[in-house]
Amino acid sequence: MLTTHPFEDDKLREECGVFGVSGSDSAAALVALGLHALQHRGQEAAGISSFDGHHFHTHRAMGHVAGNFDRDDVIRALPGDYAVGHVRYSTTGETALRNVQPLYAELASGGFAVAHNGNISNAMKLRRELIRRGSIFQSTSDTETIIHLVATSNYRTLLDRFIDALKQIEGAYSLVVMTPEGMIACRDPLGIRPLVMGKLDGAVIFASETVALDVCGATFERQVEPGELVIVQNGEIRSIRPFAPMAPRPCIFEWVYFSRPDSIAGDQSVYTVRKEIGAQLAIETPVEADLVIPVPDSGVPAAIGYAQQSGIPFELGIIRSHYVGRTFIQPGDKVRHLGVKLKHNANRALIKGKRIILVDDSIVRGTTSLKIVQMMRDAGAAEVHMRIASPPTRHSCFYGVDTPERAKLLAAKLDLGGMTDFIHADSLSFVSIDGLYKALGEAKRADIRPKYCDACFTGDYPTTLTDQDDSVAVDQFAMLAERVN
Amino acid sequence: MLTTHPFEDDKLREECGVFGVSGSDSAAALVALGLHALQHRGQEAAGISSFDGHHFHTHRAMGHVAGNFDRDDVIRALPGDYAVGHVRYSTTGETALRNVQPLYAELASGGFAVAHNGNISNAMKLRRELIRRGSIFQSTSDTETIIHLVATSNYRTLLDRFIDALKQIEGAYSLVVMTPEGMIACRDPLGIRPLVMGKLDGAVIFASETVALDVCGATFERQVEPGELVIVQNGEIRSIRPFAPMAPRPCIFEWVYFSRPDSIAGDQSVYTVRKEIGAQLAIETPVEADLVIPVPDSGVPAAIGYAQQSGIPFELGIIRSHYVGRTFIQPGDKVRHLGVKLKHNANRALIKGKRIILVDDSIVRGTTSLKIVQMMRDAGAAEVHMRIASPPTRHSCFYGVDTPERAKLLAAKLDLGGMTDFIHADSLSFVSIDGLYKALGEAKRADIRPKYCDACFTGDYPTTLTDQDDSVAVDQFAMLAERVN
Amino acid sequence: MLTTHPFEDDKLREECGVFGVSGSDSAAALVALGLHALQHRGQEAAGISSFDGHHFHTHRAMGHVAGNFDRDDVIRALPGDYAVGHVRYSTTGETALRNVQPLYAELASGGFAVAHNGNISNAMKLRRELIRRGSIFQSTSDTETIIHLVATSNYRTLLDRFIDALKQIEGAYSLVVMTPEGMIACRDPLGIRPLVMGKLDGAVIFASETVALDVCGATFERQVEPGELVIVQNGEIRSIRPFAPMAPRPCIFEWVYFSRPDSIAGDQSVYTVRKEIGAQLAIETPVEADLVIPVPDSGVPAAIGYAQQSGIPFELGIIRSHYVGRTFIQPGDKVRHLGVKLKHNANRALIKGKRIILVDDSIVRGTTSLKIVQMMRDAGAAEVHMRIASPPTRHSCFYGVDTPERAKLLAAKLDLGGMTDFIHADSLSFVSIDGLYKALGEAKRADIRPKYCDACFTGDYPTTLTDQDDSVAVDQFAMLAERVN
Amino acid sequence: MLTTHPFEDDKLREECGVFGVSGSDSAAALVALGLHALQHRGQEAAGISSFDGHHFHTHRAMGHVAGNFDRDDVIRALPGDYAVGHVRYSTTGETALRNVQPLYAELASGGFAVAHNGNISNAMKLRRELIRRGSIFQSTSDTETIIHLVATSNYRTLLDRFIDALKQIEGAYSLVVMTPEGMIACRDPLGIRPLVMGKLDGAVIFASETVALDVCGATFERQVEPGELVIVQNGEIRSIRPFAPMAPRPCIFEWVYFSRPDSIAGDQSVYTVRKEIGAQLAIETPVEADLVIPVPDSGVPAAIGYAQQSGIPFELGIIRSHYVGRTFIQPGDKVRHLGVKLKHNANRALIKGKRIILVDDSIVRGTTSLKIVQMMRDAGAAEVHMRIASPPTRHSCFYGVDTPERAKLLAAKLDLGGMTDFIHADSLSFVSIDGLYKALGEAKRADIRPKYCDACFTGDYPTTLTDQDDSVAVDQFAMLAERVN
Repeated sequence: MLTTHPFEDDKLREECGVFGVSGSDSAAALVALGLHALQHRGQEAAGISSFDGHHFHTHRAMGHVAGNFDRDDVIRALPGDYAVGHVRYSTTGETALRNVQPLYAELASGGFAVAHNGNISNAMKLRRELIRRGSIFQSTSDTETIIHLVATSNYRTLLDRFIDALKQIEGAYSLVVMTPEGMIACRDPLGIRPLVMGKLDGAVIFASETVALDVCGATFERQVEPGELVIVQNGEIRSIRPFAPMAPRPCIFEWVYFSRPDSIAGDQSVYTVRKEIGAQLAIETPVEADLVIPVPDSGVPAAIGYAQQSGIPFELGIIRSHYVGRTFIQPGDKVRHLGVKLKHNANRALIKGKRIILVDDSIVRGTTSLKIVQMMRDAGAAEVHMRIASPPTRHSCFYGVDTPERAKLLAAKLDLGGMTDFIHADSLSFVSIDGLYKALGEAKRADIRPKYCDACFTGDYPTTLTDQDDSVAVDQFAMLAERVN
Repeated sequence: MLTTHPFEDDKLREECGVFGVSGSDSAAALVALGLHALQHRGQEAAGISSFDGHHFHTHRAMGHVAGNFDRDDVIRALPGDYAVGHVRYSTTGETALRNVQPLYAELASGGFAVAHNGNISNAMKLRRELIRRGSIFQSTSDTETIIHLVATSNYRTLLDRFIDALKQIEGAYSLVVMTPEGMIACRDPLGIRPLVMGKLDGAVIFASETVALDVCGATFERQVEPGELVIVQNGEIRSIRPFAPMAPRPCIFEWVYFSRPDSIAGDQSVYTVRKEIGAQLAIETPVEADLVIPVPDSGVPAAIGYAQQSGIPFELGIIRSHYVGRTFIQPGDKVRHLGVKLKHNANRALIKGKRIILVDDSIVRGTTSLKIVQMMRDAGAAEVHMRIASPPTRHSCFYGVDTPERAKLLAAKLDLGGMTDFIHADSLSFVSIDGLYKALGEAKRADIRPKYCDACFTGDYPTTLTDQDDSVAVDQFAMLAERVN
Repeated sequence: MLTTHPFEDDKLREECGVFGVSGSDSAAALVALGLHALQHRGQEAAGISSFDGHHFHTHRAMGHVAGNFDRDDVIRALPGDYAVGHVRYSTTGETALRNVQPLYAELASGGFAVAHNGNISNAMKLRRELIRRGSIFQSTSDTETIIHLVATSNYRTLLDRFIDALKQIEGAYSLVVMTPEGMIACRDPLGIRPLVMGKLDGAVIFASETVALDVCGATFERQVEPGELVIVQNGEIRSIRPFAPMAPRPCIFEWVYFSRPDSIAGDQSVYTVRKEIGAQLAIETPVEADLVIPVPDSGVPAAIGYAQQSGIPFELGIIRSHYVGRTFIQPGDKVRHLGVKLKHNANRALIKGKRIILVDDSIVRGTTSLKIVQMMRDAGAAEVHMRIASPPTRHSCFYGVDTPERAKLLAAKLDLGGMTDFIHADSLSFVSIDGLYKALGEAKRADIRPKYCDACFTGDYPTTLTDQDDSVAVDQFAMLAERVN
Repeated sequence: MLTTHPFEDDKLREECGVFGVSGSDSAAALVALGLHALQHRGQEAAGISSFDGHHFHTHRAMGHVAGNFDRDDVIRALPGDYAVGHVRYSTTGETALRNVQPLYAELASGGFAVAHNGNISNAMKLRRELIRRGSIFQSTSDTETIIHLVATSNYRTLLDRFIDALKQIEGAYSLVVMTPEGMIACRDPLGIRPLVMGKLDGAVIFASETVALDVCGATFERQVEPGELVIVQNGEIRSIRPFAPMAPRPCIFEWVYFSRPDSIAGDQSVYTVRKEIGAQLAIETPVEADLVIPVPDSGVPAAIGYAQQSGIPFELGIIRSHYVGRTFIQPGDKVRHLGVKLKHNANRALIKGKRIILVDDSIVRGTTSLKIVQMMRDAGAAEVHMRIASPPTRHSCFYGVDTPERAKLLAAKLDLGGMTDFIHADSLSFVSIDGLYKALGEAKRADIRPKYCDACFTGDYPTTLTDQDDSVAVDQFAMLAERVN
């Protein structure tokens, strides 16, 4: 089955977005708006939990926010001044509704709802130990591990139990937790996944990206700091830092592709960084050509940066269908090979006879680049030069991003010449890792304690990866899981 | 909203039926057939879990078995030689899918699926203690308590842990449990709820009623005895009796209304017992009349018994719609008062000018009897005598039957004269409690250790009722439960 | 695919029911109630059209009345004091929504909505001629022919045009027509299909059966006479008889099976007639036996009549599932042979060792009788005697009843001995044609001008059958029809 | 209810797209692809009819092509080597399924399926006459008029009858007709709506735009000429010109907004024309500024043209959500005012303190322009200059484009100063009508016989508008139409 996403099939995918509102009588409605603005971070499923002072209310649904959470009856069934929501891309495991967040548990201290962006890299090991002690899991989600650690902690207060749980988990997590005593937002000590705080009238808002604050009219206050817990209780905001301080390592791919261009991530405009990467590309690997053409839509800012730096005109040489949000399954075997043009079509009148520079944000498997170069040649392009606004993606991510296994990453298999041949381009280049850091305002990548997590490019993972060395846990898990049809 | 069930609105409702198959390559298909035959025991939801030697597979659905479990794709997604299923009537609490059984848990010993008919009368107390120790509940069902008791037991083998759990619970339970090591069927020490065992080719089958064995072509072997655990492992059947022996107290209402007339319960034909109750009624409270008319369908066998004993002709004076299985919500306020005839209609040509004896199985609130007597009078009946094939229902059931609170039970509020006035009958009588025992082959009800649980008639509850004295647990529970929309 | 209707699979099926209300501000809601009461006449689809003085509003749906027409939003979207509705069983042709009635057309005189019970036996011929003159059909329904005849008539007033159309059609029709100028109800000159008139407060109601009047609280006034047009305009009722008078021939099968037992058809109680047929059977073909057992539900009245006449006890030897209204598709090939018991189950404890008389209303293909006799033998019956409350069904119906082709009718293929062997009964008998007329109060069937249409038993069709001699029209029709998916 | 289309709410909308395939064994699958590529021309509903040599098969659905026509089961149910399809935007009237094209009729000559882009401006008058003569309409679509004219024509052959029909209709029509004898494509004598012809292997293809040929891999042959009928029969192509020749007047708005930028319309690249209009704007009304910002997505080509002509940098100052294809209904009254940012968000970091030129394709009501200017000011823009790539839209279209009534067109109410004030811009300008013709390669608009239909800008309608002077027909029509719920 081909889809209208032939090019987006070859992207890394952020697995989640979170959004929480504390202290607004339109809490659930605001969460719905915020999740809609974060839809690009997870399109498989969404959920919202609210708390009305007495009860927790939850609605979860497969599919997009629009269509599921834009109905008055749904929002009315989520009363209360507190609400937290989550959008989710498919995990490696199961796509059942029971894995859709926020997850909820009834603890001795009361209800506990949690939304999580990231991935816990020792979740399997912890799960095995918890089951051995009598815990019963209701999902296959790594996030549920956190809840059981809280439930079985020996500490007395909920906050102490929560910190106790966090100290046992490793990996990446931006969490928004809702309890009868208030809302807690926190980021892992390295701050791998983003989380920002905003205000709207009296309400405090937490979101994965600033664009979600913009959309609901909130002002951006600051980011939640790596290793910080922000607690909102009866309108008061407290900050706790229970971890030993360490140098942050936010995911650099947020600027490359994940975040929306109109977001501000770590005080930098994502759009401006992307344009700057394009400019770096033009400086590092210039080429004589007639047109700079973006691969829509994610390649556009870098292409503008490339065009402005090089002086070669920016043109729309590939036209995207207006209906890309919808999957189109091509009917009938005979017409399947025609599928590539459903989403994008060459602007033939423009391309014909021209030397073109294609700008895209990244190459994962390379299958899409191959098709798009061919499409340009079919439209009569004289030369096709591909420029990629990130370094070669050579390593898997274990922090909440969906990456193919290493063997499928084009850059893990081939050198630059091999890749150029594979996609049939006249030339191909990637921005250098130092060029990428330059676009972010650094002189270069520091060999020791670089400022970002760039493991997908460098293999330099900033945490231990317990479950990766523990295949027994993974296999046992696969055997036990109930398949709910 | 009125429905096409105006008369069935006034029945006690069995809350569950269970069905398990061990050792057939059509296990899930047989369970679907068996559940369809047990549909009268629970119409709100149904579920089937299967085990294929490696994985557990589950499908649960709101609504009837037909329409949900009669599709090839559903059955194909439930592979394996072992399967267990459940039909469910609404519990007092929530009707969400997560409460639909079989419940499943991943224990340290492997998967564990359970289907339960009955009610655990200390479930709230146990739940509170389990949560205090760190257990997280995923449903509001009392059945989940059993699973957590197994998960957290200090014994080593699964069987020991399961018996440990059973010894902590009180109340009524017929359970069918499926584990990777085999299937376990058991009944509580008093055998309050029914459970029978059958065979079909090499497979062992457990079912709430014999009719479910008939429908799938199996032979009836014997009932699972009160307090007995039957374990089926690799085709071998073992029996364990971990409880101190005590005199059984099966629910007498199974013969009065719950079981299908073509079932054999405790070695007695349900149809024959009902006819015998009708005959007892004719002996105890005869009346001069022209016609004996059953309230369809449950009053038919007793009416036949009454007619044969009295010599007064049996006639269909009330015609039931062919479409009673479907709820019809009457549209528009103006026509709501017309609703009563949607399900039943007087056979006016027959009734007019006649003295009639109406026979029904029971009176709960009395609202239906009132309507049906009025319908007979509107059709021109000269006299209407109501005869009820059970004693007055004066007490709530806490063993898995849905009863209204006591204040709504007509017989708890009014004496016979008051009840006769309330339903506007010319006369009304109930079979005596001794007459009921006579129909079951006893001389009379024994004052000490009567042979049946008849608490709904007598208030003589055969177990302690822990949660009933513990309103705190119930309230806290209500507050904590997440409302899933 | 087997269904829970194994026995009803072998019935003739009425193809339609109609219901009209003129002059009530709850018109559409009343029609919904009325159609629900007529659901047994057509279960495939339903539709209601209303007229609010300015516009016609229509809702049509596949499936039952309950679930489609019992919703406030549906009824609110059908405003006005006039409404007409239709339930439909599948025609031979297509089951698409566009064939669901009421059919509507915008004529020069204004809107025109029609609901039709019956079948026009020269519809193909008329259609071919109309198309040749430029008419465009939107359905494959024979009813649409009437509308085009009205639209293209050379007469001036709507009433004259309608009568002009009726004079060109042959066959069976009970019609309820709604126009801006009032409602018209009419029956074909022979009155083959039924139609009655009732009143509710000021409103005039038309219905296929009296039971639909009962259910909505209306009083039965009289039947619409064969060949009569009843016109309701501004609350006034006029009667027109445009046809030459002829002796009526109402369908005798309405008393045998189609009508509900609580209906009054042609001034006779359907229940009483059926009991009387049973009594005739006991007189004509008595047999020594222990029990009289009805095939539920349609055999019950005749079985009561047989038992009362013969003095042999009436007993429920076959228990019908409470859930027969729902189709259960048996999953998996291996369990298909088990299917027969899904709907009915033998009351084994009662049957065993007994000589039984089974009473059913009719035999069509005989497949069900075969299964049910076998079920009785499997349950241990000593002898099985089958008694049928109608004469052998040997001919197809062309007046709106769904009959199998002749070659599939058991009685058209075999003599009584052959049929007895086929169903493996110890004895088999049908009521005689004269016995059937006796049960209806006649001395016997008159050779000339018998009082009923009994063509399915006798082959004596009361009208010409133009399309049956005109296979070209039928074939061409099949080729032209658009298949709407 | 606000939607994610706040800006597109203020566009004119093309009402239809058509696509036909003659002579391919994947005909229906190709039509599905083609309609998907034409989705921008009509998003309300879609339909495909196929012909397999014997039968016509049709599937129609509300909603998009994707989701309805990309399923194997749907395509398999549309067999045959001939297929025609249609996408539709809502007409003024009703949106019921029966209005969805292709429309089908069973004529004396056989089946007849038609897909129509355009509007017949004397349809009401013709309908009234046809009904008076006995025709019955099944839809409220103007297209059905054509079919009835064919059905009732006095000519003998289908082709003569079809030409007879065309000669009676006035207005705009690009038609693809499928009959058992072949496919006919035709355009009205002025060629107001587009229609092109392509080839794919042996198959002949007709489409509203060349992009639909591209997407299914077909080659573009030529346009169907104004007033031409192209007949494809058994693989042979014939051309007929039954009308007196006249100077063509294709709709100029196809280049301004309707057609996709990658289409070739009338031998000109739509993308290039739009860039040229942008360049004309920069020449006609230059302004000193820092950034040229397109209103996404339709303003992009003109903005690139403006930027290249002026030398001011092109930047993405407005970020479109990735999920614009989906409607998001904002829940809750309190958050409704926040809605404008759901689809577009200001790229605040870029805009702040800058003088910006906004480029959009057209202004209809002006409501969107008002919001977007305000969004730019809220983001800190120092000056906002709006440039519109079409002349002021002052007149309604009666040729198949959905325009608001004149009183709602901003340019019909206000002069340039008034409009500038209304949208709160620092300056506003529209390209001149001569500038628009220049971008299309003309020296200027010819006063007599201009080369395009530009009635929406000039009020110069190229045909008579019969129904516009005949309000009686329109009113009667509204009264008669059945409302199907």
